[in-house]
Amino acid sequence: MALQILPARQGTSFRLARGQTLRIVDLEGGQTGDLVAFQWDDTTRWLSNGRSFDYAGKLYFSTGDVLYANTSEPMLTIVADDVGRHDFLYTACSIEMYRIQYGVTGDHPSCLDNLSRALGLAPHLIPTPFNLFMNAGVQPDGRIVIEPPRSRPGAAVQLRAEMDLAIALSACPASLCNGGRTKPLGHEILEA
Amino acid sequence: MALQILPARQGTSFRLARGQTLRIVDLEGGQTGDLVAFQWDDTTRWLSNGRSFDYAGKLYFSTGDVLYANTSEPMLTIVADDVGRHDFLYTACSIEMYRIQYGVTGDHPSCLDNLSRALGLAPHLIPTPFNLFMNAGVQPDGRIVIEPPRSRPGAAVQLRAEMDLAIALSACPASLCNGGRTKPLGHEILEA
Repeated sequence: MALQILPARQGTSFRLARGQTLRIVDLEGGQTGDLVAFQWDDTTRWLSNGRSFDYAGKLYFSTGDVLYANTSEPMLTIVADDVGRHDFLYTACSIEMYRIQYGVTGDHPSCLDNLSRALGLAPHLIPTPFNLFMNAGVQPDGRIVIEPPRSRPGAAVQLRAEMDLAIALSACPASLCNGGRTKPLGHEILEA
Repeated sequence: MALQILPARQGTSFRLARGQTLRIVDLEGGQTGDLVAFQWDDTTRWLSNGRSFDYAGKLYFSTGDVLYANTSEPMLTIVADDVGRHDFLYTACSIEMYRIQYGVTGDHPSCLDNLSRALGLAPHLIPTPFNLFMNAGVQPDGRIVIEPPRSRPGAAVQLRAEMDLAIALSACPASLCNGGRTKPLGHEILEA
C-alpha cells in the first residue's frame, strides 16, 4: 500500500491484519496523532494504556515494547521508532476539553469526534489513544506538562499487529500539543 | 449505614446514590483498595482515569478534586482525604499480572477477579480503578515505582457521588503494593 495522507484535523480508520505493520509518518514534524485499536470483530477488546503500563512498569514506550489489549493479550509491538516520546496518558481531545481547558464556546474539531466517526462508535466507547509523537512529561508532584513534539519532518513509528485489528487514527486538531500549527500525517501498511 | 468490613483479598459492590458520600478506611494502615464506579443503569459509562487526568492536568488527586466519567461528566468528588497519595495509572491486578510480574504458576486472588465477580461483569470490561492509598511514583524516564502505602491505621478517604453509581471495591491481594501483608478495609455510606 502506498503512503496515504491524512489531512490536518481529520480522522480515518482501516483494518490491520495480524503480521502487518503500520507505519505512521510525521510528514512536517511536530504533529501528534491519536491511535486507537480494537480487536477486528469485537470493539469491547481494545488497546489498553493501563495494561501496557502495568506489564512494562513504565509510561513511555518505544522500539521493542509491546502494547497490550484490555484482555491482557499483546496487540501491537513497536518495531521501529524515530522519536521515542509518545503519550499514553491523555484521552482523546474532546469538545468538553476545548471548553474546559481552552474556553472554546463554539464548535471545534477533536480527536474524539474524528475517532468516533471513523469507527462508527459512540464517543464514550473510545479508549485512551496511544498519542503518537505527543510530548507529555510528568512532574514529581504529578502535574502533566505538554511540550511541543520532538518529531522532525519525516519521523516515523512502526507498529506490528499481533492480532487482526480495526485501527483509527486522528491528526490532532489541538494547537498546544502540535507546536501551534495543525498538520497532516502519513500512514501506510507494510506486509509481513 | 454502619462501617462494613471488607476482608483481606476480597471484593464487594453496592449502590451509591447521588449526594451520598462513600468513606473508605484503611483500618490497619498500608493497605490499598481498588475502586471502580459505573453509572447505575449503564456499565458503558464509567469512572475514567484519562478524562480525570486530562481535565485536572495531573496524575494525583486529593481533597477538592473531581473524578470524571468517560462521558466527561463529574462522577465523584474527593471531599476528604487523610493520605493524599493514590494511584490512577495501574489497572487492577490480574492473574496475568501475577504470572508476568511475580512468576505465579497456580491460582491467585486478584482485584480484577474481585471487581468482576462483585459486579457480574466480564474482566475486560473493568476499567482502570482508582487505586486508593496506592503509592506509585513516576520517575523522569517514565518508570513507575511502587512503594508501600503512606496510609496510617484509620486513614480514610471520602468520595461524594455526583450521579447514581454502582461501586465495586477490592481489598488488594498483592503483597508488593501493600507493604508485604494483605489486610481488610472498612467502608460506609454517609448520607448527604
